[in-house]
Amino acid sequence: MHFSKGLDDVIVGRSAISWVGGETGDLVYRGFDVRDLVPGVPYESIVHLLLYGDPPSADPSHEVGRELAARRDAPPSTERVVDALPVGLPPLEALRTILSSLGTGSYGYPPTREQGFDLIARTPTLLARYVRRSRGLAPVPPRADLGHAANFLWMLFGAAPEAPRVAALDGYLALLADHGMNASTFALTIAISAQSDLVSAATGALGTLKGPVHGGAPSRVSDMLDSIGAADRAESWIRDRLARKEVLYGFGHRAYKTEDPRAVVLHGIARSVADPHRLALAEAVEAIALAELRREKPGARLYTNVEYYSAVVLEGIGLPRELFTPTFAVARTAGWTAHALEQAADNRLIRPDVEYVGPPKGRVWPRPLPGH
Amino acid sequence: MHFSKGLDDVIVGRSAISWVGGETGDLVYRGFDVRDLVPGVPYESIVHLLLYGDPPSADPSHEVGRELAARRDAPPSTERVVDALPVGLPPLEALRTILSSLGTGSYGYPPTREQGFDLIARTPTLLARYVRRSRGLAPVPPRADLGHAANFLWMLFGAAPEAPRVAALDGYLALLADHGMNASTFALTIAISAQSDLVSAATGALGTLKGPVHGGAPSRVSDMLDSIGAADRAESWIRDRLARKEVLYGFGHRAYKTEDPRAVVLHGIARSVADPHRLALAEAVEAIALAELRREKPGARLYTNVEYYSAVVLEGIGLPRELFTPTFAVARTAGWTAHALEQAADNRLIRPDVEYVGPPKGRVWPRPLPGH
Repeated sequence: MHFSKGLDDVIVGRSAISWVGGETGDLVYRGFDVRDLVPGVPYESIVHLLLYGDPPSADPSHEVGRELAARRDAPPSTERVVDALPVGLPPLEALRTILSSLGTGSYGYPPTREQGFDLIARTPTLLARYVRRSRGLAPVPPRADLGHAANFLWMLFGAAPEAPRVAALDGYLALLADHGMNASTFALTIAISAQSDLVSAATGALGTLKGPVHGGAPSRVSDMLDSIGAADRAESWIRDRLARKEVLYGFGHRAYKTEDPRAVVLHGIARSVADPHRLALAEAVEAIALAELRREKPGARLYTNVEYYSAVVLEGIGLPRELFTPTFAVARTAGWTAHALEQAADNRLIRPDVEYVGPPKGRVWPRPLPGH
Repeated sequence: MHFSKGLDDVIVGRSAISWVGGETGDLVYRGFDVRDLVPGVPYESIVHLLLYGDPPSADPSHEVGRELAARRDAPPSTERVVDALPVGLPPLEALRTILSSLGTGSYGYPPTREQGFDLIARTPTLLARYVRRSRGLAPVPPRADLGHAANFLWMLFGAAPEAPRVAALDGYLALLADHGMNASTFALTIAISAQSDLVSAATGALGTLKGPVHGGAPSRVSDMLDSIGAADRAESWIRDRLARKEVLYGFGHRAYKTEDPRAVVLHGIARSVADPHRLALAEAVEAIALAELRREKPGARLYTNVEYYSAVVLEGIGLPRELFTPTFAVARTAGWTAHALEQAADNRLIRPDVEYVGPPKGRVWPRPLPGH
């Protein structure tokens, strides 16, 4: 038996979907370096790549784009559940119930690509419906003539989105579409290993993504930047925070011991969409934070992680902070689907053991039992 | 790095909650052999034992029983979600959305015992509400003067339940309350490891329990018994089924290489609650199935598993088959809570790795990209 509390040193299977090169700073989707794909390759083509293993044969009117556009309308039964949720929930909290309500008996085992297209296409529709309802606004129906990213913004804001914002969101969704055997994907894989269905598994994945250690932190980067306020206050703010042993958000990652390639690409995207003053603040804070963190822990290989420039990009797109992690989930439905299909193709129940350290067998219940 | 696809040979942590002795046929809750606890110890006392580590100090009006009875009323906001679900869903499908809808921002990290009491107390209320609504029946409000098992039957059927049925359900819930690091508990543990909340984690656990390899099979035992119909048809039916390489439900378990202690106790409970003809059929089928399975695979240590007599007991209680796995979930909310508390007390993100076997880095996208 092999003991490993965080499973850091355990390989739970083989995967052809994505490679996270933690030492070299690589993220590769089926052989393609994400830095070569973004910006440029639309999210729909990334979905195609992740689910089929190869790029689509014709662009942009390829099969997956049509499939997703055709499946954006959510079933009325799930719309009713969305409309029954209390208004004003954190959208991430609502999204868990929304994802679950997509399953109405129609998502059996094994998962299929078609089920995945439904999941990927409908998640933004239902999320946008909830967010608008929480604000007292009527739902904006999806438009089949828009791409995935543009349509999400259309359904959220009810106005034709500006091209730089669409491109920025498209790039964000592509970069966040998959990332090896991360915690939410692992939770999904366990559900599939028990031969549960894609919606059940994705709901569990979302419940895991909700944890701030995994997906829930980018809005805290925005809060931190607000709190610092100006570049000339960054050094004292950061030193004070580190002196109190508090965390700086947006730095360090379990997998990457060098630059996170997504952070690099998102930094580039931020230049096209972020408010210049905000970007300048973020860059100044980043430089000081890295210097201070490295001064504090000279041996630690600490770098800017994906959350840092995700926050700057999502702010620039105009998304409210409470939608940062839900938008991460919108992106990750692609990777979740790909991993569900891969696990089902060569399935085995994931069932580890624990070392029992409780009282030894043989305790006696203190009172006589009626049944004995 | 250690490679293990099913994690069979991996210990993911230490736990003082329950010990599954697969070689010796033991299930121990915090030092107590479940065979010494059931029948006799009410589910509420098992909840106390699992969550606090020791038996309650006074019985039956002990703290946990009062806590659960006081928390049975579900918030109107979640009742609205339950009532918005389509009628006629498989209740297990509905239960996933119901569990999720319990979270309305009030279940933060870290999990607490009080959150667990809410989860354990409200799950049967909301499940019963959905089941009755699906049948066109008005909800039956919970009764604080009844125990957990009796109240569940009261809310389902709207009539005072008979004592043997209450005792049988109480025993079933106690026996199914926890079982080491099973797949659903592991999915929950991963969500907690990301510092997600108890409702998110339990929703993911339910999504995993839904898989027939884990929790979804006891109703198939009932279907199998129906299909066999009479003891004198069992041998030919079973031989024919095995000849077609099809599975016999209710036999074999990943952990147990000897008798599952729960199956033994449930067999005893079945004698007090099952229809005598049905029990006789089940016993005849069991004997023949074990003989045939052992003849087919002489080396395999195959025994009757927990699902087999679960089916007979739950039938005897009068529960419809579609409620078998949801009732398993009602029981397991106790173990899920205990494991969530234990994981949070010594937490570390669970994040394994996979071996990338896809195309090597360096593929070139077949068309020029607009962004390059």
